[in-house]
Amino acid sequence: MATSTDVPNLKINSSRLMTSLHESCEFGKAHPYGTHETETGMARLALNDADKAVRKWYIQQAESLGCKITIDQMGNVFAVRPGKDSTAPPVMMGSHLDTQPTGGRYDGILGMLAGLEVLRTLHDSKYQSEGSIGVVNWTNEEGARFPIITVSSAVWSGALPIEAAWKCKEVTPSPDGNRYTMKEELERIGFMGHHPASYEAQPIAAHFELHIEQGPILEDERRKIGVVTGGQAYKWFEVVIKGRDSHAGTTPMAARKDSVLAAAKMIVESNKIAKAHSGLITTGIIEMEPGSVNTMAHTTRFTLDIRHPSDTVMAQIEDECRKRFSAIAADDSERGVSLEWRQLTANPAVTFHQDCISVIEQAAEDTTADLPRTSEDGKLWKHMVSGAGHDSFHTSRRCPTGMIFTPTRDGLSHTPTEYCSAEDCALGAQVLLGAVLRYDRLRAEMGLLTEK
Amino acid sequence: MATSTDVPNLKINSSRLMTSLHESCEFGKAHPYGTHETETGMARLALNDADKAVRKWYIQQAESLGCKITIDQMGNVFAVRPGKDSTAPPVMMGSHLDTQPTGGRYDGILGMLAGLEVLRTLHDSKYQSEGSIGVVNWTNEEGARFPIITVSSAVWSGALPIEAAWKCKEVTPSPDGNRYTMKEELERIGFMGHHPASYEAQPIAAHFELHIEQGPILEDERRKIGVVTGGQAYKWFEVVIKGRDSHAGTTPMAARKDSVLAAAKMIVESNKIAKAHSGLITTGIIEMEPGSVNTMAHTTRFTLDIRHPSDTVMAQIEDECRKRFSAIAADDSERGVSLEWRQLTANPAVTFHQDCISVIEQAAEDTTADLPRTSEDGKLWKHMVSGAGHDSFHTSRRCPTGMIFTPTRDGLSHTPTEYCSAEDCALGAQVLLGAVLRYDRLRAEMGLLTEK
Ligand SMILES: [Zn+2]
Ligand SMILES: [Zn+2]
Repeated sequence: MATSTDVPNLKINSSRLMTSLHESCEFGKAHPYGTHETETGMARLALNDADKAVRKWYIQQAESLGCKITIDQMGNVFAVRPGKDSTAPPVMMGSHLDTQPTGGRYDGILGMLAGLEVLRTLHDSKYQSEGSIGVVNWTNEEGARFPIITVSSAVWSGALPIEAAWKCKEVTPSPDGNRYTMKEELERIGFMGHHPASYEAQPIAAHFELHIEQGPILEDERRKIGVVTGGQAYKWFEVVIKGRDSHAGTTPMAARKDSVLAAAKMIVESNKIAKAHSGLITTGIIEMEPGSVNTMAHTTRFTLDIRHPSDTVMAQIEDECRKRFSAIAADDSERGVSLEWRQLTANPAVTFHQDCISVIEQAAEDTTADLPRTSEDGKLWKHMVSGAGHDSFHTSRRCPTGMIFTPTRDGLSHTPTEYCSAEDCALGAQVLLGAVLRYDRLRAEMGLLTEK
Repeated sequence: MATSTDVPNLKINSSRLMTSLHESCEFGKAHPYGTHETETGMARLALNDADKAVRKWYIQQAESLGCKITIDQMGNVFAVRPGKDSTAPPVMMGSHLDTQPTGGRYDGILGMLAGLEVLRTLHDSKYQSEGSIGVVNWTNEEGARFPIITVSSAVWSGALPIEAAWKCKEVTPSPDGNRYTMKEELERIGFMGHHPASYEAQPIAAHFELHIEQGPILEDERRKIGVVTGGQAYKWFEVVIKGRDSHAGTTPMAARKDSVLAAAKMIVESNKIAKAHSGLITTGIIEMEPGSVNTMAHTTRFTLDIRHPSDTVMAQIEDECRKRFSAIAADDSERGVSLEWRQLTANPAVTFHQDCISVIEQAAEDTTADLPRTSEDGKLWKHMVSGAGHDSFHTSRRCPTGMIFTPTRDGLSHTPTEYCSAEDCALGAQVLLGAVLRYDRLRAEMGLLTEK
């Protein structure tokens, strides 16, 4: 393997990485799909007992490496290994230990365990970094239990008041029938820290996140590493159509106000509009009332998830959908339906920091230099835009941030069979190590640290 | 009013009809929508306590007119007023007292109360009919509580074994958490009769059903009476589409197997196909899994209700839908989805008996002769095909059958505001009387009765 001239040739231990990853997945494992003990998915919902247990296990591992632990008022866990200058803010490797109810063993978990492996590698070689380097576990990234995604990095970055996060209630009632708030559950599992959850109280020098791609691109193109340059803009809407419920057998087609038919037309059109702009559009939920085989629904609601790397094109897609939907509502089935758009969430496009992108590029180039050239153009890494939301989107508002993607089998994520090969996990962790060490050197060179 | 030469000029009492109709609606009234006491809908689900109460009330009314009551093993109630020949099967006026959970005051109820009003009119004038004349309340016509529509006339006609009907469970659990069978509920409310539910044990000479149109045609054309010549063929399907669940932000459009999108395309196409054949097609239910804003659904199920007066055209519509859906499944989103059709129910077209149609035509012509000519062509009745299913479809397999429609405000039915004006209810009841008396005369003339 080629080495960069300016960072030491440290290598992560890939078997230790995978052993620890699967050990951590003993907490909250669920949904077996094969005979091997690691052939299960995960159900480690934020702040449940399994999440409490894995947090305690993780802290123990980090403490054994000499890390200092800080827990903030959102339960975010910062484990920091001191550098030569231990007063400047640390460079953090962050991701999440919580999963979807039918989640897998890699989403979030890989980033957390790769971060731990990087710290272990530094510890084993007694490497003295210029500044401090650590890992952070962001609470309830998935938004699967408490329905605000990346809620705790949002609070840290100042995008969301902590009171709004604290009072967020779990989606599904607990076994005792109650629906508890994040605050109640933080207190219950003992992870309500005293430290304010804020970029000012707990500053970060730079944030690096290793994550599975959760899409098919790297696998399809037979590449190993995605160097993420930013995140797509995305907006969620609920579109509400009101027509009239009438009998399927007695209402002539021309006399109908069929809300389901209007919704179907809109979904088909929205798909064409997104494709024409190289954007993404998805309807994941359609609900109707009354919902009977032989009765037209008077009301149909459907969700729209619209995404594009450019805020401008994103706005164009939305605008065209609004115009086209209005036209469909006006003429549908000859008697028309009413139409209402409700915006559920809006996130502008994110651009990661060029310094972070550069050190990841260098580390990716280095790490993949000696591997077989499997892709068509021979390059094993590529620039990518993150389609999914991540805690790194929030950190990027407050500190230089970068992300590294690894291939994901069949592009599948949020499902028990989610998979990233051990080889690919190791490559990702190695790139993470390389990027963090380069960034550590860089900030020393830039005079951002106090010389001792 | 002109009178037919061959039937007596008996007139129903329209205020008594409406008073009794609303009195019967005290049992199970629900969903008030206005300030007047009759401005409510109904929630008289089959075999619930309100249904038990209205049955007892109805039987009392019929017995006070000298009717003989027979209850069969499906809880069908036959109330028969003896004619000169009381041994031949009776001519029956049939409909249903059960309603949808958010039903109105006319669907089924009008037919039952008009039948009672006809018997009262005969009783008041001490009219001696040639053969016996009666009313029948068919149990659970709506299929709203026990999900087989017209289940008890189906058993009577031999289309459904009684065991299949008896074991049918209620859709929604009872307040105690149990889901009871029809048999259990028949026994509980005391309407499990000893008489076999069969056209052989309880033969009917002819079946006449007065019913609201449940569609907008009579109102739109400003006519008063529909002379129903038969019923549409209809089939219900569940279409199951399987694709792949993947992330809305990370899955390129070309890499998707989006089951919702495929379903939307199929629904839009099915609508075009039905219109091209002057048929009816409706999707009333769409369900998807997992049902999340930012995840494509791996599975989408939707219902198709297809109707046409001709069995042949009906088959063409189904065939074109099958071909078109297969093409959509094969090419959708470039990676395709799988497609499965499940047939839920199939009913061939029904043709009513010419003798019944003729006596209804004569009665309609008579009853409307002196009314203002509101329609474009001056005719106040028209031949119609029933779009909805009715108990008369089953009786038509075993005895001459006919139906009479009355206008329905805005074509709305199965909703609390369902409405047929008092004037139109009375016209319908008058036509029912005229048709039944003509049929009674007819069968005597045809020598079907024993002379005394
Ligand atoms: Zn994640
Ligand atoms: Zn009915």
